[in-house]
Amino acid sequence: MTQIQGWAAHAPKEALKLTTIDLGEIGAEDVEIDVEYCGICHSDINMINNDWGFSTYPIVAGHEAIGRISAIGKDVKGLKVGQRVGVGWNSESCMHCNECKTGQHNLCTQATPTIAGGHLGGFANKMRAHWIWVLPLPENLDPSSAGPLLCGGITMFAQLYNFDIKPTHHVGVIGIGGLGHLGLKFANAWGCEVTAFTTSESKIEEAKSLGAHNVVTSYDTDSLLKLANSLDMLIVTSNVTLDWATLLKTLKPNGRLHVVGAVLEPMPIPAIDLLFGQKSVSGSPTGSPAAMATMLEFAARHNIAPQVEHFPMSKVNDALAHLISGKARYRIVLDADF
Amino acid sequence: MTQIQGWAAHAPKEALKLTTIDLGEIGAEDVEIDVEYCGICHSDINMINNDWGFSTYPIVAGHEAIGRISAIGKDVKGLKVGQRVGVGWNSESCMHCNECKTGQHNLCTQATPTIAGGHLGGFANKMRAHWIWVLPLPENLDPSSAGPLLCGGITMFAQLYNFDIKPTHHVGVIGIGGLGHLGLKFANAWGCEVTAFTTSESKIEEAKSLGAHNVVTSYDTDSLLKLANSLDMLIVTSNVTLDWATLLKTLKPNGRLHVVGAVLEPMPIPAIDLLFGQKSVSGSPTGSPAAMATMLEFAARHNIAPQVEHFPMSKVNDALAHLISGKARYRIVLDADF
Repeated sequence: MTQIQGWAAHAPKEALKLTTIDLGEIGAEDVEIDVEYCGICHSDINMINNDWGFSTYPIVAGHEAIGRISAIGKDVKGLKVGQRVGVGWNSESCMHCNECKTGQHNLCTQATPTIAGGHLGGFANKMRAHWIWVLPLPENLDPSSAGPLLCGGITMFAQLYNFDIKPTHHVGVIGIGGLGHLGLKFANAWGCEVTAFTTSESKIEEAKSLGAHNVVTSYDTDSLLKLANSLDMLIVTSNVTLDWATLLKTLKPNGRLHVVGAVLEPMPIPAIDLLFGQKSVSGSPTGSPAAMATMLEFAARHNIAPQVEHFPMSKVNDALAHLISGKARYRIVLDADF
Repeated sequence: MTQIQGWAAHAPKEALKLTTIDLGEIGAEDVEIDVEYCGICHSDINMINNDWGFSTYPIVAGHEAIGRISAIGKDVKGLKVGQRVGVGWNSESCMHCNECKTGQHNLCTQATPTIAGGHLGGFANKMRAHWIWVLPLPENLDPSSAGPLLCGGITMFAQLYNFDIKPTHHVGVIGIGGLGHLGLKFANAWGCEVTAFTTSESKIEEAKSLGAHNVVTSYDTDSLLKLANSLDMLIVTSNVTLDWATLLKTLKPNGRLHVVGAVLEPMPIPAIDLLFGQKSVSGSPTGSPAAMATMLEFAARHNIAPQVEHFPMSKVNDALAHLISGKARYRIVLDADF
């Protein structure tokens, strides 16, 4: 029996309240973690508000958690008490489907998020996750800013890793925020030529300091057509409707328009623009445990850290309001203060 | 100077008339061919009618040509007079761009079709093409039916070849016509499990004889959802608007919805359906010369021949009407009779 203290919403859109919750006995394959830090992701807000219809209450959000292992179930593999680890979007997967057996646990149709399906997240003093989803943190990665790598970071790293992107490729990133700023850092460290797309003139210099070689600030057709036939991959982090047909023209032959933001309206894709240049439109959900481990090692080696603002976890409601205001630069981390 | 006899349209939508045209001197890199057979593709009709706006008149259509080399320019490589060859959709490419230099001449933005940009096609006694686009025919491939492999065949073969499709994959083909019937044959010979999608109950048995293991005849949502999470690649040969969102659900994780028909209306693709299963929507235009050569060797080895109806070339107008009627099973070949 483990009682935890968690910042929980008890109904959609309610402010979070410190709540004591009993986690019961630890499962044989579960890892229990003393949370030190937890990033905030936009999807925490979506889940607190039940925007996607599968939230259960009380909900403890938070899925960019860093901490030290305090207990392990009897069948946990490869981890030990005291080790510093991170947990991201997923906390469980079936382990026996084709995707799990081929190391793509993030594509398991039974994969369960860290903050849904009975799991409670990292806005708490303790949390649990299945051992495969608990990633040891490299020694030389700053734990106080590493949290956002576990969701935002892997979301931007996974397509470079999965789709055979080479250092010779030209990569564009649309939207310079929590995800996009990490996309610039990773694509630059990957060796690519990096183009940032942002509508904020104020972000031009910052985008360059984050790793962009070029910055595009206007999405009108003429401006985009100047980039015709120049990009191998264009990663869309925003969730707004864009001029998809013109954006496809910025791609070279074999180019890929890749969405990681949950664009709300269907994207009207002209087949003819796919045909002539053998282009693709695709999407991806975070990454596998193996990809996450590889990303952490790569981030440590290339000194890639999310740019974060810190709030004490007891100020989580203020932190959520700051994120919603759009003023966070670029990711918020809560420091556990129980 | 070479005078040819070609069946030419002198204005959009006009009947073809036997016309004498002077091709001028042969170019240094050109191959001249005595046409024996030429398949008819729907895009011949589009070009005769100037549906795509880049036709020039008089136009001699025909881009699935088979014949024997009658002359070669002084810089032609790897071909000799008397050799039996085929020519498909393209007849020229720049040879110096990145795509040409990497063997993807079909993605060259300067690639010129066999029946546009000053080229005249195979509805004639003679035609010319740049040597890279002239493919030697394997000895054991029947020349009288091989023509449709050069456009329809490579269009269905290229994605198996380019996108790492394995014999363990499950492949669907939507539309069982000139392209689709070759798609079933190639996917079956590739070793895949093959599902044909057709709205014609009358084609069920034929689809099975062409290589389909399963046949789906209803595209209503309930029927399609029975196939949820079952296909690795779904190839769309039709050009009509379908229920793209539901078709995406028939794909397994990492699955690809691939269009080879020029679907006219933009496809409304829900980003969320791409995200969760890391799925792609893509398209492709015919194939490279190297892919065409590989296809011809594969077709010969696996006894893959287009199912064709023959017309004498002098009856080309009747043949076009038959194709337009939708009754061709499945591809028409014109036999040169000058």
